[in-house]
Amino acid sequence: MARIVMKFGGTSMAGIERIRSVAERVKREVDAGNQVMVVVSAMAGETDRLVGFCREASTLYDPREYDVVVSAGEQITSGLLAITLQAIGVPARSWLGWQLPIQTSDKHGKAQIDAIDTDALAASLDGGSVAVIPGFQGVADGARVTTLGRGGSDTSAVAVAAAIKAERCDIYTDVDGVYTTDPRIVPRARKLQKVTYEEMLELASVGAKVLQTRSVSLAMKEKVRVQVLSSFDDKPGTMIVGDDEIEDTTMESHLITGIAYAKNEAKITLTQVPDRPGAVASIFAPLADAAINVDMIIQNIAHSTGSTDVTFTVPSADLARSLDVLEKAQEAIGYKDLVHDTKVAKISIVGVGMRTNAGVASTMFKVLGERGINIQAIATSEIKVSVLIEEDYTELAVRVLHTAYGLDAEEETV
Amino acid sequence: MARIVMKFGGTSMAGIERIRSVAERVKREVDAGNQVMVVVSAMAGETDRLVGFCREASTLYDPREYDVVVSAGEQITSGLLAITLQAIGVPARSWLGWQLPIQTSDKHGKAQIDAIDTDALAASLDGGSVAVIPGFQGVADGARVTTLGRGGSDTSAVAVAAAIKAERCDIYTDVDGVYTTDPRIVPRARKLQKVTYEEMLELASVGAKVLQTRSVSLAMKEKVRVQVLSSFDDKPGTMIVGDDEIEDTTMESHLITGIAYAKNEAKITLTQVPDRPGAVASIFAPLADAAINVDMIIQNIAHSTGSTDVTFTVPSADLARSLDVLEKAQEAIGYKDLVHDTKVAKISIVGVGMRTNAGVASTMFKVLGERGINIQAIATSEIKVSVLIEEDYTELAVRVLHTAYGLDAEEETV
Repeated sequence: MARIVMKFGGTSMAGIERIRSVAERVKREVDAGNQVMVVVSAMAGETDRLVGFCREASTLYDPREYDVVVSAGEQITSGLLAITLQAIGVPARSWLGWQLPIQTSDKHGKAQIDAIDTDALAASLDGGSVAVIPGFQGVADGARVTTLGRGGSDTSAVAVAAAIKAERCDIYTDVDGVYTTDPRIVPRARKLQKVTYEEMLELASVGAKVLQTRSVSLAMKEKVRVQVLSSFDDKPGTMIVGDDEIEDTTMESHLITGIAYAKNEAKITLTQVPDRPGAVASIFAPLADAAINVDMIIQNIAHSTGSTDVTFTVPSADLARSLDVLEKAQEAIGYKDLVHDTKVAKISIVGVGMRTNAGVASTMFKVLGERGINIQAIATSEIKVSVLIEEDYTELAVRVLHTAYGLDAEEETV
Repeated sequence: MARIVMKFGGTSMAGIERIRSVAERVKREVDAGNQVMVVVSAMAGETDRLVGFCREASTLYDPREYDVVVSAGEQITSGLLAITLQAIGVPARSWLGWQLPIQTSDKHGKAQIDAIDTDALAASLDGGSVAVIPGFQGVADGARVTTLGRGGSDTSAVAVAAAIKAERCDIYTDVDGVYTTDPRIVPRARKLQKVTYEEMLELASVGAKVLQTRSVSLAMKEKVRVQVLSSFDDKPGTMIVGDDEIEDTTMESHLITGIAYAKNEAKITLTQVPDRPGAVASIFAPLADAAINVDMIIQNIAHSTGSTDVTFTVPSADLARSLDVLEKAQEAIGYKDLVHDTKVAKISIVGVGMRTNAGVASTMFKVLGERGINIQAIATSEIKVSVLIEEDYTELAVRVLHTAYGLDAEEETV
């Protein structure tokens, strides 16, 4: 008898009709002989409504009270799913964060899960009952309600699966899996059967909004087999697994697993920064102090004048703050001009196959060059190459790379 | 330093603007040097919404899961009020039912409060923090969420006041106090400064829907001074107190405190019931088994035939079920005809002054008789006389009695 976790998002829980179809899916897993835990989100729109109340009450709301308010959304859907399961003959009960308990840090509003007590849960499962667990919530010191931050229900599901050593954690969502790239841009994008945790992390953090990044990191750390699949049809989804479950990549025709893009970055260039030790630190220390995440960084070779240009990207949302911080630090850094550009996009090719194959990056540069797309910056990791280009070329770049790396499906898939 | 409980209903909590004005009221009590506990209802309409979800999910919903769902409404408002209080500089925190805890029986959906642990609460108050407590909810065996039944927040407030020995419990509502009768019928109805628990019980149970009956019983038992007042203006309300706080009633000009009416009862008459021991029991036992509350009962003198007519009232909502029960029991009871009438109203005069004054009831019968209003049944208690009349005469009866007992104000008050 296998233990599995099923997680349903807000769209799947939006109203009793949909909750009923969730219950039917859960019943199928129970009928197949599994012990099932279900982690649920709040009804679509509900968390926004509750967050809106908190913000209206005070822009500087107490995060402990915010947690009391917003955790109610998942409390409601967990009770409703338990009722709906019972109505179709499936024994079920809800287990709130403080009841299991799901112990978290006391960093309210973005708490980390420390431990999940599985004694009561295991006994309940062995007693033949489905456990319905509200996602996103926990309890700190056994005393105060906490929440994990937006999208935290994915993390709840993976954490429950890890704690109880579930065979797998199925994340039901409104897409039916992870694709080689955004099918809205490339109609011949293919759904991946498998993707590694690391690839998923790179794909998620650069734009594929299927799973919360944090839940993927946790799954990787805890070796939880995660499956992403659709709430609305019965097609198989995408399994997210360890490297060892992927066939020897050198034998594969596809070196690249997927292509991601992100338009929400802004490029900043400081010109004529003095080429001396400590100069770079004087740029990035004040940005770090302001909690601004700097992504790609390029330092050109020094000019003959003994100065250099430094280019980097920040999230567009942080651009104004970044400029403010840098203007104040102009004297300390000693740059000449501060130039910025929001009309940029980051294109990334991702794949574990890249590790054992040279030439993957050069193909990328060549293909983009042939189309007249200028590369403004490059960043690489072991399984990813990212380039910064002019935003208008985003779709073209993704499409030509998708073809160049042999990712196109025979037919349009979506 | 006095400890007081303030309770706000759903209309007062409907939206952040109103919660803000609740917070201002709380602040005034804090500024006056009081230690304040606030018991809150869900936003107006919210509990109906949540109950609706449960019913839609299953007509036979599990009351344990129902409690998980519907208790969320008060959880939300308690967090929001805490945030709003903090925003105007008043330290505050929410205390959920399981956190205090408010221990209840495990009769889910209509639990009884067993005990309230005041240690943490008192420490929090002494620390200068306002305690915001969601009404209507508790916890059974420290483990499962319970609710007290609709309107239970009044009971929560009185129970908290009793547990912590509060100086008084102020119930803020959308009326500004208890009136001598319904001002919509009698524009010269007067607001009462004081009313005894027993009078309030009689007035509430016969139609004055200001306070939940159960909360008044609890206040009487625990000797909690309750004040009913308006959320929307600053006029003094009505104090509900013990007999000992009412001046010697024999000296008062008003023997009668108030006049109530109820149109939601139905009259049932069984004709020619055998006049023998056990006959009456055979009528009311099956109704009691069906959990139908019988109110007024009149048994006429036996006919010369050795049989009698028995008349009684039941809530209109239970009429169909009552008739069904009685038809099935016809043979056992041995009655001839089953007659019913929903076009009836119960008019009650209520007052502790009645105890020491004969003639109060006869004035009632005389006044109604002069207006040609026929009395179909009479029931009396120590502080109440109720008569059943034809429904169409309700307003006339209330008006003439209000005048006859000297209750009319100098001017229209509402």
